[in-house]
Amino acid sequence: MSKQQELDGLIKSIAAAGEKLPGPERRLFLKQGLTMLGAAGAASGAAGIGAAEAALPPGVPSWTKSLGTGVVTNPYGEPSPFEAHIKRRNLEWLTADKIASISFTPLADLKGIITPNGLVFERYHAGLPAVDPGLHRLMIHGMVDRPIVLSMDDLMRFPSISMTRFLECAANGGMEWRGAQMDRLQLTHGMLACCEWTGVLLSTLLQEVGVQKGAAWILAEGADGSHMSRSIPMDKALDDALIVYAQNGEPLRPEQGYPVRLINPGWEGNTCVKWLRRLKIGDKPWYHREETSKYTDLMPDGSSREFTFVQECNSVITNPCPENPLKGPGKFWVEGLAWSGRGKIKQVDVSFDGGVSWRTTRFTSAVLPRALTRFGVEWDWNGAQALLQSRAIDETGYVQPTYGQLRAVRGTSSIYHKNAIHTWKVNNNGSVANVQIS
Amino acid sequence: MSKQQELDGLIKSIAAAGEKLPGPERRLFLKQGLTMLGAAGAASGAAGIGAAEAALPPGVPSWTKSLGTGVVTNPYGEPSPFEAHIKRRNLEWLTADKIASISFTPLADLKGIITPNGLVFERYHAGLPAVDPGLHRLMIHGMVDRPIVLSMDDLMRFPSISMTRFLECAANGGMEWRGAQMDRLQLTHGMLACCEWTGVLLSTLLQEVGVQKGAAWILAEGADGSHMSRSIPMDKALDDALIVYAQNGEPLRPEQGYPVRLINPGWEGNTCVKWLRRLKIGDKPWYHREETSKYTDLMPDGSSREFTFVQECNSVITNPCPENPLKGPGKFWVEGLAWSGRGKIKQVDVSFDGGVSWRTTRFTSAVLPRALTRFGVEWDWNGAQALLQSRAIDETGYVQPTYGQLRAVRGTSSIYHKNAIHTWKVNNNGSVANVQIS
Repeated sequence: MSKQQELDGLIKSIAAAGEKLPGPERRLFLKQGLTMLGAAGAASGAAGIGAAEAALPPGVPSWTKSLGTGVVTNPYGEPSPFEAHIKRRNLEWLTADKIASISFTPLADLKGIITPNGLVFERYHAGLPAVDPGLHRLMIHGMVDRPIVLSMDDLMRFPSISMTRFLECAANGGMEWRGAQMDRLQLTHGMLACCEWTGVLLSTLLQEVGVQKGAAWILAEGADGSHMSRSIPMDKALDDALIVYAQNGEPLRPEQGYPVRLINPGWEGNTCVKWLRRLKIGDKPWYHREETSKYTDLMPDGSSREFTFVQECNSVITNPCPENPLKGPGKFWVEGLAWSGRGKIKQVDVSFDGGVSWRTTRFTSAVLPRALTRFGVEWDWNGAQALLQSRAIDETGYVQPTYGQLRAVRGTSSIYHKNAIHTWKVNNNGSVANVQIS
Repeated sequence: MSKQQELDGLIKSIAAAGEKLPGPERRLFLKQGLTMLGAAGAASGAAGIGAAEAALPPGVPSWTKSLGTGVVTNPYGEPSPFEAHIKRRNLEWLTADKIASISFTPLADLKGIITPNGLVFERYHAGLPAVDPGLHRLMIHGMVDRPIVLSMDDLMRFPSISMTRFLECAANGGMEWRGAQMDRLQLTHGMLACCEWTGVLLSTLLQEVGVQKGAAWILAEGADGSHMSRSIPMDKALDDALIVYAQNGEPLRPEQGYPVRLINPGWEGNTCVKWLRRLKIGDKPWYHREETSKYTDLMPDGSSREFTFVQECNSVITNPCPENPLKGPGKFWVEGLAWSGRGKIKQVDVSFDGGVSWRTTRFTSAVLPRALTRFGVEWDWNGAQALLQSRAIDETGYVQPTYGQLRAVRGTSSIYHKNAIHTWKVNNNGSVANVQIS
């Protein structure tokens, strides 16, 4: 009921905002960019067709005069060939090799909050393993009364649940800590995705095995060649940690941990162990390789923060951006994504003058906890240079920091957990550059 | 906030239900289907590893001892080869040819509520056209003050919104009206999908063109060879009709109307005109071919009901089903999908005895208006024959009818709008058959 009201409200707010605009301002959409028919077309509905033809590309397109192809030409469909540029990309220099590396989600080309499975960023510690689901097993043992080994068939018999949640690498944007300025949104923020994950709550499985008194941590270990492993506090396991076998409706993709992975909603991606083969329950963390030599935050005083699991509140404008320049002055729909590992997004403000003044945006997607949230605002661009920023606030009241605020605490030696307010500089010619404002 | 509470409630209800189960009953999961470690394994956490190895397939899998493949091996990823059976299927005999035909969504293999783009059912009236987005135009004319012709770039400048909504062919399940019993869930209910759709509210565009007094209907026309067209009442256009250019985050798929289509949430799929090229505003419906010779409901007295747009409340059990037989007695997670073109699903009950007694299920996904909703309930199967049914109730109070109730009003000559309670017969050997109970 409340969700219905929420969406009704969204729809009404958009309609209402439109109504408030005076005619001439609204018609800027037409004047600046759209092909408006002349007075002849407006005079009568019937005359409209003829007038409109003048605005059409010459000739009647072939596809309106012929039969197309039949059903199940692609039993598993693919994107239009006109959209072949929308793909995951990597950076050759970022890691020593392509086996233990990362690829980036093409955020500039995506809409809404769901990331299609074929475009979810990749992160491997020993490459993508080809796991046979019939041979794969998940063992749960340690401080439990009834240790078990589960086949995938076994796992499917437990109650399941589906949640739409973001997934983000702790290193998302990490290249910018020391001032590097990547020239694509895909590279500045693309270690990020959001899917509907389906599986069994870890709490359900813990109930099955019977957790013993004193148990406080869980080791999650992957079946890949790196045996990627992380220590997870029991509180998270009993909250919303999910043993996942499906994403966006279908079985997990190989690069996302097929046939089964852990998802800790809102936590750094490396804790969401893929190709999950083992959960060991214990009374303290294991301090394995990936939580000591990696995935700790180097502070200005030389110490390292450990177990910084939560991906704090963050946001970015996805249109315009370097991949989506502005095509001449006029009205545009400026939009972006906000997310917080602590819950729902409460508000997103946008600045067009580098943070001097701010306008509150509208939400244009479902607003779910620990999920990407889409925001948007109309902007009438006069053709002058502009500095675009977004600033998100989550339901805990946390406000996304500036680079200055973030570096005052964290210094510049970190790799992980960069969530500073990001700036796009719009040039006079409509091109967009990545700049840093502290 | 309310959505957070809703999901928290979901999670807690699952946990709570588990807690209430006495130990022995809960452990049926183990006794019947799972591989429980012996007392030695249970005695100590450390001993668990050795004991568990006995339950593992022989040998250490190759993928745990080697490096896998690198990033962007597939810049646009694909499903695991182990899941190649999950695909759209068609019925050769259903239509005169494959050009103007339909394919079905593999519902038995899907989880959650999102249908991945590659598996959304297809319906063509003149085949799948290859539309060039750079040449495509959308014209809005008729009883308007400012007729316009929009390029895709133009359309992208308007405020956008994203909504997760189901899409269903009016003929979904139509083969069963006269008693045919298809042997797959994919064929009984697979003209159904649910996506996050992104685009511009039709009401936003109508405001742009200025609708004239007396306007009451809108003709939507496609650019394919059939020039598929339907008359849409103005009320729907001003409510939630959406001009869509993206599905599940990425550009519309070719078979879903690339580059732009109409979505009338909750209404029969054929009104959601694909490859949309024209919207004409008028004062009465056009009575085009697809709303006279097709897409009307033949009633028992020989008359035809016209403009029956809404897809009424419906549901089906997706596990078990003919494609998902039961593997021996024991506990199972029985789940399915419910949906209503009038709003949210309020309740879904499941019967295991052909409708004599009912159990209320839990929702295990987000509950959104005019979207698929996932329900589930635990079932301890004793190995005896059983008749499984699901019965959905929507927020208007409408209760999904039995075949008897539906046929009393509609007869058996219809093709469209079949939403009767569906029955799966579970045989002693765990196989599942489609039967009809009136």
